[in-house]
Amino acid sequence: MDPLLPEPEPLVSLIEALRRLPGVGVRSARRMAYHLLQHDPQGADMLGRALAGAVRDLKHCARCNSFSEDEVCGTCSNPKRDRSLLCIVETPADQNMIESSHGYRGLYYVLMGRVAPLEGIGPRELDFDRVIKRATDGEVQEVILATNFTAEGETTAHFLGEALGERGLRVTRLARGVPAGSELEYVDAGTIAWALMERKIT
Amino acid sequence: MDPLLPEPEPLVSLIEALRRLPGVGVRSARRMAYHLLQHDPQGADMLGRALAGAVRDLKHCARCNSFSEDEVCGTCSNPKRDRSLLCIVETPADQNMIESSHGYRGLYYVLMGRVAPLEGIGPRELDFDRVIKRATDGEVQEVILATNFTAEGETTAHFLGEALGERGLRVTRLARGVPAGSELEYVDAGTIAWALMERKIT
Ligand SMILES: [Zn+2]
Ligand SMILES: [Zn+2]
Repeated sequence: MDPLLPEPEPLVSLIEALRRLPGVGVRSARRMAYHLLQHDPQGADMLGRALAGAVRDLKHCARCNSFSEDEVCGTCSNPKRDRSLLCIVETPADQNMIESSHGYRGLYYVLMGRVAPLEGIGPRELDFDRVIKRATDGEVQEVILATNFTAEGETTAHFLGEALGERGLRVTRLARGVPAGSELEYVDAGTIAWALMERKIT
Repeated sequence: MDPLLPEPEPLVSLIEALRRLPGVGVRSARRMAYHLLQHDPQGADMLGRALAGAVRDLKHCARCNSFSEDEVCGTCSNPKRDRSLLCIVETPADQNMIESSHGYRGLYYVLMGRVAPLEGIGPRELDFDRVIKRATDGEVQEVILATNFTAEGETTAHFLGEALGERGLRVTRLARGVPAGSELEYVDAGTIAWALMERKIT
């Protein structure tokens, strides 16, 4: 419902901007705005500066495509990681879940999305050429496809599996210990560790 | 669960700042941050500027205490409103709900909170002296207490009713058409219109 009282313009702008956040409708946006202005102006200031800083300073790692302050991120430049293994995930959140399973010491590539034909997101939008280039650096011997076990995640894995298999790489997929239809981010670390151990050649 | 991969500092700061929003935990904060950085940097920029603008430009109306860009807000300075009626609400959201019922043409006072002894919020923190001063301007004849029908809202109404009644004002409370225990913001406009009509002297 639209309020009938005129709201001051800076408040209207703030509510509209908060609605850009995923999962935030007009009612929660208004509640958030009131809260920040009335009870936490310091938090509002912090958030404003953090947004400016993140947009200004964060780029994508040249090797794994995850968010990074540097040209190459700390994970990719860590000499202790196994450079013969490359795990491909959809998002940094998925990457964190894999890492928290303590079952993996290789490197990552973060797609920052998945193939979603209905949204017009295909291999070109996800820059599969760059994924292939990364995987064929001569050091990688096995690529683990760790996209989600959803329809879109499976499609993504299928496309990548074909393209990487053709180039002579060993391509594996996480074992189906992960419940079908679920998203990695919501699976417990033990299940993920098990699925990594049981991974199978596609 | 804490991620084990080092996250870049600007990302960590952004996630922490987003957690200041009401109802946002670490997981949604991370999702919001990824979304803004990956898919909506323009939205991130908008939100940053809206926060700075709101904190800088919004103040409280000198008469009704609601958010306003000006010394006195548009509602308080509107000559068409009935200056003999003053409706006291907890928040601007409640004020909007009352307004959307089309059942009220008087003025408002917005407490920006309610008496909550457990949180250390009493008459002093809500500046009841200022409410009383506003209600005894010589023009107001009836004060309508439209605080929520929760324990805290009822306590607030009780304190205000006593203080204002002592000063010879007619004090009314919204009729109990509003379901007990509920918050005004979530009640439909028709019920509120009815409750306004049926308001009774406390
Ligand atoms: Zn990297
Ligand atoms: Zn006002």
